[in-house]
Amino acid sequence: MFAPLAEGNPGALGLRDDAALIDCAPGNIAVVTVDALVGGVHFMPGDPADLVARKLLRVNLSDLAAMGAEARVYFMAISLTAEIDTEWIEAFVAGLAADQDEFGVHLAGGDLTTTPGPLTLSVTAMGEVPKGRELRRSGAAPGEDIYVSGTFGDAALGLALLQGALAGKTAAEYPALVGRYHLPLPRLALGAALRGIATAAADVSDGLVADLGHICEASAVGAEIDAHRVPVSQAAREMLAAGAATLETVLCGGDDYELVFTAAPASAADLARIASELEIPLCRIGRCVAGSGVAVADAAGTPMTLRRSGWRHF
Amino acid sequence: MFAPLAEGNPGALGLRDDAALIDCAPGNIAVVTVDALVGGVHFMPGDPADLVARKLLRVNLSDLAAMGAEARVYFMAISLTAEIDTEWIEAFVAGLAADQDEFGVHLAGGDLTTTPGPLTLSVTAMGEVPKGRELRRSGAAPGEDIYVSGTFGDAALGLALLQGALAGKTAAEYPALVGRYHLPLPRLALGAALRGIATAAADVSDGLVADLGHICEASAVGAEIDAHRVPVSQAAREMLAAGAATLETVLCGGDDYELVFTAAPASAADLARIASELEIPLCRIGRCVAGSGVAVADAAGTPMTLRRSGWRHF
Repeated sequence: MFAPLAEGNPGALGLRDDAALIDCAPGNIAVVTVDALVGGVHFMPGDPADLVARKLLRVNLSDLAAMGAEARVYFMAISLTAEIDTEWIEAFVAGLAADQDEFGVHLAGGDLTTTPGPLTLSVTAMGEVPKGRELRRSGAAPGEDIYVSGTFGDAALGLALLQGALAGKTAAEYPALVGRYHLPLPRLALGAALRGIATAAADVSDGLVADLGHICEASAVGAEIDAHRVPVSQAAREMLAAGAATLETVLCGGDDYELVFTAAPASAADLARIASELEIPLCRIGRCVAGSGVAVADAAGTPMTLRRSGWRHF
Repeated sequence: MFAPLAEGNPGALGLRDDAALIDCAPGNIAVVTVDALVGGVHFMPGDPADLVARKLLRVNLSDLAAMGAEARVYFMAISLTAEIDTEWIEAFVAGLAADQDEFGVHLAGGDLTTTPGPLTLSVTAMGEVPKGRELRRSGAAPGEDIYVSGTFGDAALGLALLQGALAGKTAAEYPALVGRYHLPLPRLALGAALRGIATAAADVSDGLVADLGHICEASAVGAEIDAHRVPVSQAAREMLAAGAATLETVLCGGDDYELVFTAAPASAADLARIASELEIPLCRIGRCVAGSGVAVADAAGTPMTLRRSGWRHF
């Protein structure tokens, strides 16, 4: 059932050899990332199979985007439980097929085993990037600006809605928020466009403050961000206005899979051009400073204290 | 605790970036394989952590060996249960460190999650091979000879001993057999030496007949093997003589991780030289014929009927 996903990728050897072959273009270097999802930990047992498949793939593609890489192939290890039937696998494969078309990637290999317990999925995604042009977390310097793509807090609010944790609000009322949780959008084109411009980059899986904190740690700088500059969607804005959500969800909620990156002030015009060409909103939310850690100021410039700096999965 | 395993591999970026960088030498192509092990399915819950780690890594390196690749790096996704303590992880890491030294590979990245279910481990191993020189399952032709490295049935007997399934025999009496089950030896040097000589190759994980069957299927040939030519160890020979094991265990037992490969008759001298240089016994066990499937003949030339052609994990 998985073989059609490898069509169009001769290096997969029809999924029937001991390993797959992956050729990098001359001058390129391979970029590889691994993520595992566990049923009941990273997704809910009742989540639709096609969405589970697509999220798993997209989470990995997002890591490649954060490195400025072009996505090429992926491998998948699946430990199936007895409850998984043919219908479930068909939907799972259909989800992967849809995303293969959307992101131009192919299945290159994998392993299928059984498990007494919960469904466990692991994906290895491979891409490539011109050697020396990859984006790392470690290149930020004091005086540089901090930017983000898209909006924040949507996925965390979507999850809270699905869990019935937002009093008086239902998932059906906010499909865009639920969609952000189920189906993140890896910023591959943006990552590639940022080569040579972003000095450091990460994708936001743990939450904006936590992942910016990873850049600070790797780059040995501090960060100051202005909470009111962090972009939020119309739906999230309504939630904030109604008191159903707090700014903390926006700053610390996970699963948004946007990019956070740093760039020299002189790159502002380039970034405006990239935002316009790719039709992806880019917002400057703060600056790098000497020191360490992420400091957040509210609209009045007062330092905010955040109860949690990273997202915990349910 | 895993970071020391990435030392000496700058492309791992200290395990602290979104992905790892892997550079292939010019003219080489990357070879990638994925395997998952599930507690209670592929290993026993009480197996020593260092042996579980090393077997997981070696099983993947064996796939690279079957492609004629040099092993370079690996990635590991680990879903930990609540029972796993620091001591277990220390032993697990120590096992990996020992095998990194032995096989010249490094950890390049991974993912650590929790699971309510059994411990689940997945490894992605990467190697490289000169482009066009990789060994595939698909190159065998009628008239070619079939060879194997090492001995067969030892791992299956080792597992049977551990399970107390061999009446009157204990695991303590046969450490070599138990060792073959716990700690397979990936034939990396042999795989590399077979480039340009073997016309098709596979590693034997499912059992000799089953994995030779994979070569037959991929190459569209048949295979005839002489059961009495299949090499067995001294310990396995004792088991056979005592009636504690049958030839079927030798032919169909899994987990030996030796190589089975095909070569033109004219390559016999080259293969004798390789066997001698690498100090790895190579045995000619049969020949490729027009047709399909694997036929096994006993010492009298009578066709044998095998109840099972592949190995089922306990």
